[in-house]
Amino acid sequence: MLYLIGLGLSDEKDVTVRGLEAIKGSDRVYLEAYTSILGVGKERLEAFYGKDIIVADRDMVETESDDILANADTLDISFLVVGDPFGATTHADLLLRADALKIPYTVIHNASVMNAVGAVGLALYNYGQTVSIPFFTDSWRPDSWLERVRENARLGLHTLCLLDIKVKEQSEENLARGRKIFEPPRYMSVPTAVSQLLSLLEEDAPSTDSTPAPEALNPSTTLAISLSRVGDPSQKFVSGTLEELSKLDEDAFGGPLHSFVIVGNRFHALERDFAARWAVDRENWDKVSNGVYGVRD
Amino acid sequence: MLYLIGLGLSDEKDVTVRGLEAIKGSDRVYLEAYTSILGVGKERLEAFYGKDIIVADRDMVETESDDILANADTLDISFLVVGDPFGATTHADLLLRADALKIPYTVIHNASVMNAVGAVGLALYNYGQTVSIPFFTDSWRPDSWLERVRENARLGLHTLCLLDIKVKEQSEENLARGRKIFEPPRYMSVPTAVSQLLSLLEEDAPSTDSTPAPEALNPSTTLAISLSRVGDPSQKFVSGTLEELSKLDEDAFGGPLHSFVIVGNRFHALERDFAARWAVDRENWDKVSNGVYGVRD
Repeated sequence: MLYLIGLGLSDEKDVTVRGLEAIKGSDRVYLEAYTSILGVGKERLEAFYGKDIIVADRDMVETESDDILANADTLDISFLVVGDPFGATTHADLLLRADALKIPYTVIHNASVMNAVGAVGLALYNYGQTVSIPFFTDSWRPDSWLERVRENARLGLHTLCLLDIKVKEQSEENLARGRKIFEPPRYMSVPTAVSQLLSLLEEDAPSTDSTPAPEALNPSTTLAISLSRVGDPSQKFVSGTLEELSKLDEDAFGGPLHSFVIVGNRFHALERDFAARWAVDRENWDKVSNGVYGVRD
Repeated sequence: MLYLIGLGLSDEKDVTVRGLEAIKGSDRVYLEAYTSILGVGKERLEAFYGKDIIVADRDMVETESDDILANADTLDISFLVVGDPFGATTHADLLLRADALKIPYTVIHNASVMNAVGAVGLALYNYGQTVSIPFFTDSWRPDSWLERVRENARLGLHTLCLLDIKVKEQSEENLARGRKIFEPPRYMSVPTAVSQLLSLLEEDAPSTDSTPAPEALNPSTTLAISLSRVGDPSQKFVSGTLEELSKLDEDAFGGPLHSFVIVGNRFHALERDFAARWAVDRENWDKVSNGVYGVRD
């Protein structure tokens, strides 16, 4: 049996009881280590499970899936994924390969940022599509995600923005020379992501002086709520306008992982008050909520 | 401390290790019992936790929250929610009340259908807003959710459709007479939900004979994937056109809870093949995927 097990958001104790039992009963345990990170290292997991863990990078999962699945018709294999197994990527390749080899599989779900984002208090029903914001480079400023934010905003929907993670990346030089030397991991912070967003907005046609509306993304009248390390005891939320968030120091958010929500117009008084507790400037938060978003008590 | 703890999707072992520790250490344990159900009863949970559980219906949570929070400044209180604590409703009222009483709270997340829907293999990034489909009555056929499905479809996005749950409902007569007698719980099935959807489509202006497109909801050319008891060992997925799903017997889906996904146009070959395994009619699934949705290998 192949077990695909979500580890949840923060540390070794976020696994479910069902998941822990499956891991403890497994003959081999893999940890998928390229779409997210836990707040703890592999050693903490190994000590808690009483099992050795094989770290599976993207290369291994995509090109050596038959090694992962070896003998899973008679042995139990656990494949661990931070968050939920279907959160960042569906792992459909691996599961279809298991099917082809007549290996049964069981999925053990867990929280991922895709539903834990509910913790900022906006109704999950009113989120549109999720976007990922990639790191800009000097020569590459991908912006297709911005149109998706706008699609959501036009419908009054919130957007969960996930921020880039660079794990096991090679420098251009090392890549060109075929050297398997990897750069240190990089995790995008909220100020970086919001600054990238604002720089794209600046490039657009200059805004006319019409009344700002929530469906028009604007530095001073679009509200956002950031999440750092959601689900961890050290989690932190910050709410404010895009401009306010972009000007904060990275220390205000703490370590990775960061994400943020762009607030759409389906925004209610209870949600305003819930998120006001984390506002950079509470007076401005209420002013924009009521004056621009039209929130009524 | 108030602990808001997600129980996950299926049974007593879907709680996280962190959640279980909090429950075992709590002085009082409440179970929120009106937005979803587990596959097991309160007694199984009590035996597993070694704790008595107080069932909290909507009335209690909304009007007696101070009883729930009583002494939570010195005692530990667990408030259990099926799925994730912020899934079906944000419980912001309860948390803001805790804040007002200077009671700290900790949220322990878990899987909910909002992210476990990933198990059907469609990328979670490409879902739009989620809708809830209410039971129709003879005199009331609410349809505002259908416009939201259309908003998603026009953007090529999938829609997760959650199905109505009637728990502790009173008949009109008992309500009028002020008698607290409750009807047996009702859970909407996939055939009922899809039939309601199709009946609304029939009322619309008759479709012209233009080429069917995925953004136009149509009984025979819109694809859907149903989920029954997702996360439970007995979970079942069925994929097909709306028409195909509406014609199946309820037994084909098994017991509650049911939900389904209306497939949008951001639909890829791997996703087609993943869901094809559950197709009512595999040939037709591939035909519509390729011919109407334009999926290319």
